[in-house]
Amino acid sequence: MLEIKLIAANEFQRVRESGLDAHDTLRLLADMCRANTLATVKRAGSGHLGSSLSSLDIVAWLYHAGMNTLELGFDHPDRDIYFSSKGHDAPAYYAVLYSLGILPKELFINLRRLGGTHGHPDVSLPGIETNSGSLGMGISKAKGMALAKKLQGAGGQVFVMTGDGELQEGQIWESLQTTAHQSVNNITAIVDMNRIQSDKPVEEIIDLGELERKFETFGWHTARCDGHDFAELERVFTEFRQVSDKPKVLIADTIKGKGVSFMEGPAALKAGNGLYPWHSGAPDDEAFETAYAEIAARINAQLDAFGLGELATEVIDRRERNRVRLKDRADKVVTAYGKALLELGRERQDIVVMDADLSADCGLRPFENAFPDRFIESGIAEQDMVSTAGGLALNGCLPIVNSFGVFLASRSNEQIYNNATEKTKIIYVCHYAGLIPAGPGKSHQSLRDISLFGALPDCVILEPGNEVETRQALRWCVNEAQQSCMIRLVIGPSPGVIPVAEDGRFTFGRGTVLNEGDDAVLFSYGPVMLNEALTAAERLKSHGFSLKVINMPWLNRVDVDWLETVIGDTESVFVLDDHAGYGGLGDALLNALMSSELLRGRPLLKFAVDNHPACGTPLEVLDYHGLSGDKLAVRILLAMKDKPDQLLEAAS
Amino acid sequence: MLEIKLIAANEFQRVRESGLDAHDTLRLLADMCRANTLATVKRAGSGHLGSSLSSLDIVAWLYHAGMNTLELGFDHPDRDIYFSSKGHDAPAYYAVLYSLGILPKELFINLRRLGGTHGHPDVSLPGIETNSGSLGMGISKAKGMALAKKLQGAGGQVFVMTGDGELQEGQIWESLQTTAHQSVNNITAIVDMNRIQSDKPVEEIIDLGELERKFETFGWHTARCDGHDFAELERVFTEFRQVSDKPKVLIADTIKGKGVSFMEGPAALKAGNGLYPWHSGAPDDEAFETAYAEIAARINAQLDAFGLGELATEVIDRRERNRVRLKDRADKVVTAYGKALLELGRERQDIVVMDADLSADCGLRPFENAFPDRFIESGIAEQDMVSTAGGLALNGCLPIVNSFGVFLASRSNEQIYNNATEKTKIIYVCHYAGLIPAGPGKSHQSLRDISLFGALPDCVILEPGNEVETRQALRWCVNEAQQSCMIRLVIGPSPGVIPVAEDGRFTFGRGTVLNEGDDAVLFSYGPVMLNEALTAAERLKSHGFSLKVINMPWLNRVDVDWLETVIGDTESVFVLDDHAGYGGLGDALLNALMSSELLRGRPLLKFAVDNHPACGTPLEVLDYHGLSGDKLAVRILLAMKDKPDQLLEAAS
Repeated sequence: MLEIKLIAANEFQRVRESGLDAHDTLRLLADMCRANTLATVKRAGSGHLGSSLSSLDIVAWLYHAGMNTLELGFDHPDRDIYFSSKGHDAPAYYAVLYSLGILPKELFINLRRLGGTHGHPDVSLPGIETNSGSLGMGISKAKGMALAKKLQGAGGQVFVMTGDGELQEGQIWESLQTTAHQSVNNITAIVDMNRIQSDKPVEEIIDLGELERKFETFGWHTARCDGHDFAELERVFTEFRQVSDKPKVLIADTIKGKGVSFMEGPAALKAGNGLYPWHSGAPDDEAFETAYAEIAARINAQLDAFGLGELATEVIDRRERNRVRLKDRADKVVTAYGKALLELGRERQDIVVMDADLSADCGLRPFENAFPDRFIESGIAEQDMVSTAGGLALNGCLPIVNSFGVFLASRSNEQIYNNATEKTKIIYVCHYAGLIPAGPGKSHQSLRDISLFGALPDCVILEPGNEVETRQALRWCVNEAQQSCMIRLVIGPSPGVIPVAEDGRFTFGRGTVLNEGDDAVLFSYGPVMLNEALTAAERLKSHGFSLKVINMPWLNRVDVDWLETVIGDTESVFVLDDHAGYGGLGDALLNALMSSELLRGRPLLKFAVDNHPACGTPLEVLDYHGLSGDKLAVRILLAMKDKPDQLLEAAS
Repeated sequence: MLEIKLIAANEFQRVRESGLDAHDTLRLLADMCRANTLATVKRAGSGHLGSSLSSLDIVAWLYHAGMNTLELGFDHPDRDIYFSSKGHDAPAYYAVLYSLGILPKELFINLRRLGGTHGHPDVSLPGIETNSGSLGMGISKAKGMALAKKLQGAGGQVFVMTGDGELQEGQIWESLQTTAHQSVNNITAIVDMNRIQSDKPVEEIIDLGELERKFETFGWHTARCDGHDFAELERVFTEFRQVSDKPKVLIADTIKGKGVSFMEGPAALKAGNGLYPWHSGAPDDEAFETAYAEIAARINAQLDAFGLGELATEVIDRRERNRVRLKDRADKVVTAYGKALLELGRERQDIVVMDADLSADCGLRPFENAFPDRFIESGIAEQDMVSTAGGLALNGCLPIVNSFGVFLASRSNEQIYNNATEKTKIIYVCHYAGLIPAGPGKSHQSLRDISLFGALPDCVILEPGNEVETRQALRWCVNEAQQSCMIRLVIGPSPGVIPVAEDGRFTFGRGTVLNEGDDAVLFSYGPVMLNEALTAAERLKSHGFSLKVINMPWLNRVDVDWLETVIGDTESVFVLDDHAGYGGLGDALLNALMSSELLRGRPLLKFAVDNHPACGTPLEVLDYHGLSGDKLAVRILLAMKDKPDQLLEAAS
């Protein structure tokens, strides 16, 4: 059985105090951090390895040599501040913080677990200066920190790492202009120029062109060097110390996946036929062992050469992954979406599919490969993508716009609004909707998207609960809808297959009864929450309480005749939202019941994500928010007017 | 009494067909458009004159000489497409379309009126290709149009005009990168380089630096010329026709306010002591007459020189302005906000005020002048501003972030969310909130902002109803609130002074009874809607129906004990939102009543802006949306279960 090993903090101390040459020490420490990064990502089951390994040497250099932070402490006003704007390289960042004794072991080894480190940086963790993970905000935030230092008369520089793909975000260029104009000179940006974004080369997605000249014309003092060469890093940062009239940027040429031969950019791209396979997700056991052995061998060879004795590691337990159990065959709405898109692409020449560097994650590759002319890749530039869709829609095309919901609904919200005012038809697909998977954390979980589309005067919002419904929903949006639509899709495989409607129909404003019951009725949607709803119904059934469960894929359109039929005389109405309690299906049904006079004095209670979404495994997080089937069963019993006490006891 | 004159369409035809040299003709036509622009803005009472006059020559040149649009017609797939990304120059754009017979007179003269032309371009109008008015989207939208042409094998170029201040928006740089990478070569951008933004020089707000080099490094074929010289424009656009491998951009050096000596950039800046006074708003009678006389004299001198006879004009009626009547002394919440900000700035050194080029409109000038070090001007870069606020808040400052609500809540939504996840405290002020003033149209009216902040887990949203409450609300946010807050502020003077609480207190979660009554209760907020609510109560009172009117400034926090007291046994509850019906105070109260079991079977009816906001004068638009006091009175009576029929008849 596979063992996952940790290099303990005292080993780092041993190397640091060994009296080796500074750069030799750093090389060793960085490789030890690589090993630990690999271990925590493997243990977590996911994480961004490629990006972690490319930026790691720079982070190691900054904390060990470039910054005064360790010396002064993280609370000192004069400390240098570092953070990663992309945030995807958090595992390596944590590894460096652990190696320095900043991050305790229990936090460090529990990457992407409730109570552990978050998938992307979070200020609740020691040593983390700001939350990141959504791209493009870093230079602006660094500027805020740098300006605060100036206002308070505090010393110290602010160092911010960006990705290269990240430079496709418009906010980067906003912030480059304002930082130069405002003469913020205590800020240094570092571009981790690893040349690969999600799974393709940056120059294929949206080329950055002559980047040095771009930075220079934007008024920044610009340097370039090998981001894995400590001597070069030292040279550049020493030079930067002399520059006091401008903000500074280092373009650091790096290699994605650096330090694991088969994960390194060029080789990995070749092996993947042009697609880089190590951007996100954990390696399988074989790849992990090969990679770990390669790094360990290099470390040991170095230790040996310096006469420092072999590396000590400790085996860490492989905590059970704690996934939502997969009840039966996998059902994946994203895959169904991709198939339906391909099918519709064949049927309708006016469909144009738009992507912001998430083609594979969003199930777009089949369409992309079949219809390259009608596939528009915008790179990480959601605002540009949405307004381009607006121009297409005005001129006879039907754009289907894709990104993760947390980015699409939010980053490009005003562009979506502008398009809406033209009353053209555009289909927005908010992928990665809802609470789960919760490993990547708040920057990726989309729990506000319904509310961000909700006040548009005429946009239909849907979330399908299974593969069949996904095809139906997309076909309805493409072929039936007169107006713009937003489709939410969960990104992972469904924990259980949600049953389809018995009559096979998909009717505007109407849902499907998944479980009959007459003690109460629970509305929900999407594979994740419907699975919990059905689990709750099962639990309650064993206690003699019958819960009607309804799949309601129409999140802001309700056929009130149908609603009256399915609610009947049921005493209590519950709604389970895979969204914040504000503005979701719960509010839509509450309003529908009120305006159609169907409320009749009965209570409607909403279950929803009523705080910032937690980071962790699916079951940890569902439980944390009181939304697991078990927790829901108890909450439903507690809410009933005539509480069946003995049932409640049994259920609790 | 002042006369407003129109140069009729046949006068343009006379000049076009006069056989003059092409450039002489254009010069004449453009000046005639200038006169008509001035006339319609004066008649409307508002409009962006400076920007209209700077871009006008280019628009005139494009339609008369540079594009095939008139020849092919606006429905032809091969037509050239022009639009203004900034959209603020709509009055001049309309003048050109009117001069060509595209826009009928009745539409043209009714600028910013219901049923007339919109304050910013709207596709419902003849000749308008896309909606604009919010900045930075134009190149992306033009790219969508250009790509649609390619997909459909259609000819024609897409021409898009941007402002220079507009280049501070990040989306511009996103779109420059993607357009070049995607080799979209049928697109030409034109920068109306008039060097002044809202009221200050671009180089003072956020300097654009070496703009030609910037465009070149972004992969665009770049040219520069005098934007008022038709020979130069012809030269550049002729050269552009030869460039087929790149998108093209012309930096057109122009003069803001061109053609009216005292409105022209440098002179006007000097007269305004560094502030440009003609960006928005109509000139007073004297300035109008002087300006009109200057243009008319120049036109007549030209006509005379070419032997064409004097210019014929027709007097157009000065339709009554149809403002919401000002009942008593002006009450302006923005002014009160600016004063309170200054006061707090003196009390607390941690306050930093942030602006995105709307300092005067947002009442920030007093603070800006008193505390220049703690005033951060971001230019038109809302995302950068918000993330910079995030960095400041993480490091000991209390940022107060200002912009129009429609931009701030929407454009920088993901940045606001990112800040929220850090649980720092930031105060966002959404100016120009709500339906009124409706003249600028949909791009400026903010009716979704509550919904865009609503799903943040811990953000208090307030809208004060008068000057006193504005100071109280800001002081509460600064000194009492533990969390981030959003304050909505209407931008215009209050139509009537909304009474303050009798006890002078401002209590968390509680509102104020403005009018006693027991037949029904109506909750609302903000000076505009409270004025209509009180008007409705007056109307109803004369019919023997007593309406309790409550000012509820807390839009997402309700003290339910208070709520129970003020509602009592009242049969019907009404809520009037200065917002979309989705996600506003209506939903907050509905949820509060439901969860506190106070609903007790009674109906709650929401009055809100349930469609895209109309453009027009305040009363036109309030009436159009059924939200004027008169309309509300009727809607309330209609909604009552026991309709007092004779009252209803009398009221209707």
